[in-house]
Amino acid sequence: MKVVVQKYGGTSVGSVERIEAVADRVSRVRAEGAAVVAVVSAMSGETNRLIKLAKDLAPSPAERELDVLMATGEQASAALLSIALQKRGVPARSFLGHQIRIGTDSAFGRARIRNIEIESLREALGAGDVAVVAGFQGVDDAANITTLGRGGSDTSAVAVAAAIDADACEILTDVDGVYTTDPRICPEARKLDRISYDEMLELASLGAKVLQIRSVEAAKRFDVPVHVRTSFDDRPGTWVVGEEAGMEEILVSGVALDRDQAKLTVVGVPDRPGLATQVLAPVAHAGIVVDMIIQNVSHEGDTDLTFTVPQGDFDRSLEMVRKIAEDIGASGVVGDPEVVKVSVVGLGMRSHAGVAAQMFEVLARENINIQMISTSEIKISVVLDSKYGELAVRVLHRAFIEEKPDD
Amino acid sequence: MKVVVQKYGGTSVGSVERIEAVADRVSRVRAEGAAVVAVVSAMSGETNRLIKLAKDLAPSPAERELDVLMATGEQASAALLSIALQKRGVPARSFLGHQIRIGTDSAFGRARIRNIEIESLREALGAGDVAVVAGFQGVDDAANITTLGRGGSDTSAVAVAAAIDADACEILTDVDGVYTTDPRICPEARKLDRISYDEMLELASLGAKVLQIRSVEAAKRFDVPVHVRTSFDDRPGTWVVGEEAGMEEILVSGVALDRDQAKLTVVGVPDRPGLATQVLAPVAHAGIVVDMIIQNVSHEGDTDLTFTVPQGDFDRSLEMVRKIAEDIGASGVVGDPEVVKVSVVGLGMRSHAGVAAQMFEVLARENINIQMISTSEIKISVVLDSKYGELAVRVLHRAFIEEKPDD
Repeated sequence: MKVVVQKYGGTSVGSVERIEAVADRVSRVRAEGAAVVAVVSAMSGETNRLIKLAKDLAPSPAERELDVLMATGEQASAALLSIALQKRGVPARSFLGHQIRIGTDSAFGRARIRNIEIESLREALGAGDVAVVAGFQGVDDAANITTLGRGGSDTSAVAVAAAIDADACEILTDVDGVYTTDPRICPEARKLDRISYDEMLELASLGAKVLQIRSVEAAKRFDVPVHVRTSFDDRPGTWVVGEEAGMEEILVSGVALDRDQAKLTVVGVPDRPGLATQVLAPVAHAGIVVDMIIQNVSHEGDTDLTFTVPQGDFDRSLEMVRKIAEDIGASGVVGDPEVVKVSVVGLGMRSHAGVAAQMFEVLARENINIQMISTSEIKISVVLDSKYGELAVRVLHRAFIEEKPDD
Repeated sequence: MKVVVQKYGGTSVGSVERIEAVADRVSRVRAEGAAVVAVVSAMSGETNRLIKLAKDLAPSPAERELDVLMATGEQASAALLSIALQKRGVPARSFLGHQIRIGTDSAFGRARIRNIEIESLREALGAGDVAVVAGFQGVDDAANITTLGRGGSDTSAVAVAAAIDADACEILTDVDGVYTTDPRICPEARKLDRISYDEMLELASLGAKVLQIRSVEAAKRFDVPVHVRTSFDDRPGTWVVGEEAGMEEILVSGVALDRDQAKLTVVGVPDRPGLATQVLAPVAHAGIVVDMIIQNVSHEGDTDLTFTVPQGDFDRSLEMVRKIAEDIGASGVVGDPEVVKVSVVGLGMRSHAGVAAQMFEVLARENINIQMISTSEIKISVVLDSKYGELAVRVLHRAFIEEKPDD
């Protein structure tokens, strides 16, 4: 029998009416002969309501208890969807993290799934029941409740799909798939039918927030085909899959814009081993996520080190780095609290030379100055003055996707 | 070390401010040197909110899933109180039904506690933590979540107190103790300092809804002293305890009024064995709780059978009993949809004769006609026309409690 895992996000179960619609959809899939596991998020707004209660009591609530609190959101959704299914004559049973059981480490608020015991789930499916799984939650070895972090229900769905060897994992959401770029910036953006895990990882981390990045990693690791589609109608969305023949022929699959970037440069640093660590370790230690890091070749024994951080961490980073610069004898620190990062992503880059050169040429034609460059095997990212972000996305989308260059 | 179990009801944890007050109170008790287990209900209003969601999806939601849904209320309260305690520098840890674990049967919505494994609880108390327990919930042998029924947190508290052999079990609520009668009816009502389990059982089942009746049964069975008191200040309330020397000298501890009674009489029933069963079994089978049952001695081979039911079940019962009356050849059915039951309760009745006679005399003096009488070892109940209910309570309270008769 075909086994389908469907994950419904917070908007999809955000009201009694939406839960009814989800129950109808699950019923249809089951009526077509599939065994269905429905993974649900908390009703939209619920997570924020709970966080507010906790923050009203303590500015930084203990993480263990925050997880106990948060887990109630998905628990309620799972019960409610089960009730709606049973009302339709569809046998259904809810499963919480400790009932399935979804074993995780003990990193409250950002736990990682270690193992899934699926006996009870298999038993329910075997009996003809729809299994409704509370997403986002697990349980550690000491029976503490854990949560996987925001968007963790995607990861729950993929992990369950892998564990029961499901035929497909559908992520039902409020967008209808993965686009070549943000349609609000570039009306010519088009929905992709298929995209590889690796491309999706680069796009997800670059701000195309359709799928939680860890769920894509999990899908890749266990080779689970993921179908991202809207819960509002039956149109097919985008399949996120392993690499397939033909995929490499597409040079660029997507263009992403990350607006949340700030830039810091330590100028005139005496160039010696361990320099980057000296500057960046304290920043990372303070919990600040450093994204791009560039170090130029030194001239006359000195070098410059530039890196980007989220804009909200700019002031804190600047203060920290100024102190470090003084300690290590650098001449100074300059920064820009607001830059953007534009990236092109595509499997084809691995075998096609010249994509970077063409990218720089397209930007130069518009007089857009490139401040930093960083490349990976299937991605080229540039940091720009923030005012050029949207223009850069549009011209790159036109050059690489609408006009489909041959090389 | 002294171990105190404190149960906080829905009103006591009904808002962020109230949770803060509870955290202060728990902190004080702990600072005085006691190990504290705090058992919490759902925030007031939360249970109704959840039930409404479920009922909007299905008029009679599956009980298993309703329990999964309901259990989130107490789970959230437990997490929030733990967060508030930690904020105050008091180490605290929440425990859910499956974590303690509170084992129950599988009667969803009205489960009974079978056994409690308290190792994790003991470990927490031993480490100096306050253990915050989600009330009302348990887990059956198949790891399904169960709930104990409305007010079940009282039972959770008593059961946990028994299991860990606590020195006291405090029920913190929005009333300040158990009264000799309802002060809204009789301003002379006074708070009792102590009352026996048996008296409390009779009073609780008679409408003095301070403690869930099952929690009193559990307290009696395991001999747990229960202290019912307000959560709003530090005044002592009422201790519900085993019988103690001197208790029997008090003839009447309380006078209770039950307004929710309706009366049905099957008239002219041929008196033969099995009559009561024939009439009442179908009623009980329909889930209607029959309270008082009276059968008079027969005259000329016929007898009358009278019983009371909750007023909301009167019409249904009447219809049912009319059909039965026809089948068994009774002459007819008469009923009164609105009567009241007034009861006097007291351990002293066991050894003092004449309480009933005195009660009837007091009522007769006011020209109050008694329609039915029922007695137990420590209770006398009469059914009256509903218009006499409050007057009867006042005159009986004066006669038995304010004037304290010697016999």
